[in-house]
Amino acid sequence: MDKLTQHAAQVEPESDKLFVKMALNAWQIQIKRANAAFDGLAEDRLLEEIAPGKNRVIYLLGHLMVVHDALLPLLGLGEKLYPELEKTFLTEPDKAIPTLPSAAELRASWTRVNAELARHFQAMTPQAWLQKHTAVSEEDFLKDPSRNRLNVLLSRTSHVAYHLGQLALVKN
Amino acid sequence: MDKLTQHAAQVEPESDKLFVKMALNAWQIQIKRANAAFDGLAEDRLLEEIAPGKNRVIYLLGHLMVVHDALLPLLGLGEKLYPELEKTFLTEPDKAIPTLPSAAELRASWTRVNAELARHFQAMTPQAWLQKHTAVSEEDFLKDPSRNRLNVLLSRTSHVAYHLGQLALVKN
Repeated sequence: MDKLTQHAAQVEPESDKLFVKMALNAWQIQIKRANAAFDGLAEDRLLEEIAPGKNRVIYLLGHLMVVHDALLPLLGLGEKLYPELEKTFLTEPDKAIPTLPSAAELRASWTRVNAELARHFQAMTPQAWLQKHTAVSEEDFLKDPSRNRLNVLLSRTSHVAYHLGQLALVKN
Repeated sequence: MDKLTQHAAQVEPESDKLFVKMALNAWQIQIKRANAAFDGLAEDRLLEEIAPGKNRVIYLLGHLMVVHDALLPLLGLGEKLYPELEKTFLTEPDKAIPTLPSAAELRASWTRVNAELARHFQAMTPQAWLQKHTAVSEEDFLKDPSRNRLNVLLSRTSHVAYHLGQLALVKN
């Protein structure tokens, strides 16, 4: 290997790994904060609204869970674990569906979905992250290669942060 | 150039650019949403609280502005434009400082700070993004090269999203 090849083969893939590491770290920071927020609230407080007339905490927990569950097929990693809860926590607004899973069930599904994602994420190479997600066509992906799996992760990281800002109103 | 060198020199730097493009895009999406949220509120509504007893919208506007202003020195791009507003919107909580800038002044400073950042960002190479930020020592950066400028951008992207979740409570 000449010097340039060596540099390129060693340094550039390392920076790819670094970018992925940073994106995954940003995701995990938000997951940890969400866990801390939800774990810090007893069951009765999950039924509080984040502000008068707004979503209840339990809806946000279910909402984040089903959005993360949907990452499994969107990233091509598998089937949704809880497709039956999508109507309750995504399609319909809070309070439209009167019967909700118990707080314990929802907490467990939230933990399980994030663990399943983490299991897949730790095995994914930078190349795998740059592959297209399943909601974009081959044709559109060729036009815009940023419509990849990592881009979805960045977007969902902001999505958790968005709802954490709301959860913070209840915590304090 | 042999084949591997060519591949490495052409493909890997492209993926570096792609990672940076995605991170910048994620940032810009949040900035656009924040602009839409603030622009959609008349001056009197900026004085509303996002929820009873919580921060007012004008505090969030000022807070995001000074946090973004602080990115200039943190990323080694220059001095803060509005250091005199840090006490009002960062060090102190809302309502602690009775005299605020006018809504028009604050909106203008928010636009100016983000434009100044955008001007720098568009000129930064992937290598520049992977340089250390100014709040980490050389020694700590060597131990953990993810403590770089791009990591700060990812973190501040989540920070905007966090407060956007709160702003959404006022908008609707």
